[in-house]
Amino acid sequence: MIHHRTPAFDALLKKVLTALPYLFQTKQQVFMHTSTGSGAMESALVNILSPGDRVLAVVSGKFGERWADMAEVFGARVERLTVPWGEAVEPQKIKAALEAHPETRAVLCQACETSTATAHDIRSIGEIVAASEALLVVDGITAVGAYPLAMDDFKIDVLIAGSQKAVMLPTGLSLISLSEKAWKVAEKATCPRFYFDLRREKKANAKGETLFSSPVSLIKALDYVLGRIQEAGLDRHFQQLRRRAEFTRTLLTEMQLEIYSQSPANSVTAIKIPAGIDGIKLRTHLEEKYQLTVMGGQEQLKGKILRYGHMGYISDDNLIESMTRLAQALNDFGAKYDITQIRQKAESWLKAHSL
Amino acid sequence: MIHHRTPAFDALLKKVLTALPYLFQTKQQVFMHTSTGSGAMESALVNILSPGDRVLAVVSGKFGERWADMAEVFGARVERLTVPWGEAVEPQKIKAALEAHPETRAVLCQACETSTATAHDIRSIGEIVAASEALLVVDGITAVGAYPLAMDDFKIDVLIAGSQKAVMLPTGLSLISLSEKAWKVAEKATCPRFYFDLRREKKANAKGETLFSSPVSLIKALDYVLGRIQEAGLDRHFQQLRRRAEFTRTLLTEMQLEIYSQSPANSVTAIKIPAGIDGIKLRTHLEEKYQLTVMGGQEQLKGKILRYGHMGYISDDNLIESMTRLAQALNDFGAKYDITQIRQKAESWLKAHSL
Repeated sequence: MIHHRTPAFDALLKKVLTALPYLFQTKQQVFMHTSTGSGAMESALVNILSPGDRVLAVVSGKFGERWADMAEVFGARVERLTVPWGEAVEPQKIKAALEAHPETRAVLCQACETSTATAHDIRSIGEIVAASEALLVVDGITAVGAYPLAMDDFKIDVLIAGSQKAVMLPTGLSLISLSEKAWKVAEKATCPRFYFDLRREKKANAKGETLFSSPVSLIKALDYVLGRIQEAGLDRHFQQLRRRAEFTRTLLTEMQLEIYSQSPANSVTAIKIPAGIDGIKLRTHLEEKYQLTVMGGQEQLKGKILRYGHMGYISDDNLIESMTRLAQALNDFGAKYDITQIRQKAESWLKAHSL
Repeated sequence: MIHHRTPAFDALLKKVLTALPYLFQTKQQVFMHTSTGSGAMESALVNILSPGDRVLAVVSGKFGERWADMAEVFGARVERLTVPWGEAVEPQKIKAALEAHPETRAVLCQACETSTATAHDIRSIGEIVAASEALLVVDGITAVGAYPLAMDDFKIDVLIAGSQKAVMLPTGLSLISLSEKAWKVAEKATCPRFYFDLRREKKANAKGETLFSSPVSLIKALDYVLGRIQEAGLDRHFQQLRRRAEFTRTLLTEMQLEIYSQSPANSVTAIKIPAGIDGIKLRTHLEEKYQLTVMGGQEQLKGKILRYGHMGYISDDNLIESMTRLAQALNDFGAKYDITQIRQKAESWLKAHSL
């Protein structure tokens, strides 16, 4: 461990802050907070909102709900654009809402609603919001680093990411960047903020420092991850993740399992639990007997779906094992999969689609 | 790495949450935030304050200033009890301020003002504040785990700590606990809060979960540290740290270096830079030539003091080396220390005071 007020850390910080805009595909500065992704969600709000501001929140799952609730806590008048779980928001509905309420100051949307593994069409939403006075505020926690979400090209005004998803690190570091349009709002926004105050963080970064103590262990690891991504190049990195997502969707479909989302993301795939199987027991069984960690559903989806993360560092062997172990676990609950056949299908798909 | 929504993490979390009250010397629950110590400073404020509340802030260094500024950002009417840097606050002055303004809702005080390495008499302050309506809110970032700061006995209402000081971990995890008196205030406090909302965190902990994603790597390490401290026992652990502090103060004094603080803490020792030496150059020289990381002064003390942390995992060899390397570095700036003699004094002091 190195101390965060030393020349060695100064050099590391400079390197990481220089590399981050490539990950966000932006010309803007990217800032780090010592927090979870939810901390960055709060930062995105308190840096641009003033109490009483009207906010349009796309609510298509648990994280959309959280963001809408959070904005209300900080005094925003929140209009919820509710979308059935598992579906992508229709960009035209955002356009209609902005036309009905041109005083809207911000549109909040997940790039990928992690709780339902659903991708929203941020590029189209960006075109619509850019034509209005509002800022487009995007939660890219399971998108940045997983699939193309080019902050500048997509006209995103506030973009956040977290360390423990596509950035492949332990939890504890979050990332945020503001467009010029957002900075103009941030300079005047009156939500009280200190720990997440990007005006202060920007001043500290300009002096080559972080505002508060830095999570050195995570920043060292971030430097390594950014190096890997730069070496491969973002295009190839995204191709690798898309291949994993396509593999997962193909194999699950061949196993007669139904993909839950109507707009599946390339970072995580959700499947419906087959009728008659207790999803909570299945998940525990997968964890305990097969050492396969997948997530269940949350809130209204508890026990009804399984979510497969395929972000991060995952090998072809991991992909094959994840499918055969799921099949074995389902067999323990009464299914009749031929494990050898699934393994062969997985191996041949990966061979036919090698990168 | 394990995932934070798995049985393995549930067991780890339960173990850590059960062990933390011993560290805080309290019967109350201790909560974790994914943040730096400054995040916990903000949490302490937003959980108990309502805009307009009168707050008395002891300002005796950089961290006292930060807390007073932060409280103002969140709408408090802040009275600063300014104490000369390097001195401890006189508890009677707090008593007088509370008598003059019985409507004061909170007293903010560092247990150790890290920027000046000065310990305040929290036990005496606790007696005074307990007799009033106000809450005693204590920053124990360089105190909890370093020397006795018994939350319940000292009548502390809100106590915070951070991972990277006496808790011996990398930055990224902070700790906070509230007394019953503080909980009553917290239930009604109206400062907007979400990420740091302890009411929500308490509900999550009651279900065996954390409210947001958890910094698993740090919590695993915290479990190890708590195990070490429990095994030694807090009394012996504090004795070990006091021995290091006494060693440091004794050796520095023998080297004719002046201890900066009039109430030196057992976690960190500050010395005045001898006349004629550039403190910033000395610190860089120590780092680069002698691989000895010490901190300089901040703000008005920049270049004027050196701060020796002796919290965390430090061996007798480290203690000896820290003194001989400082002497060598000072010799490079024109001093005439006999390094062999300093090494002998250090060794004999440690032998005579072995634990």
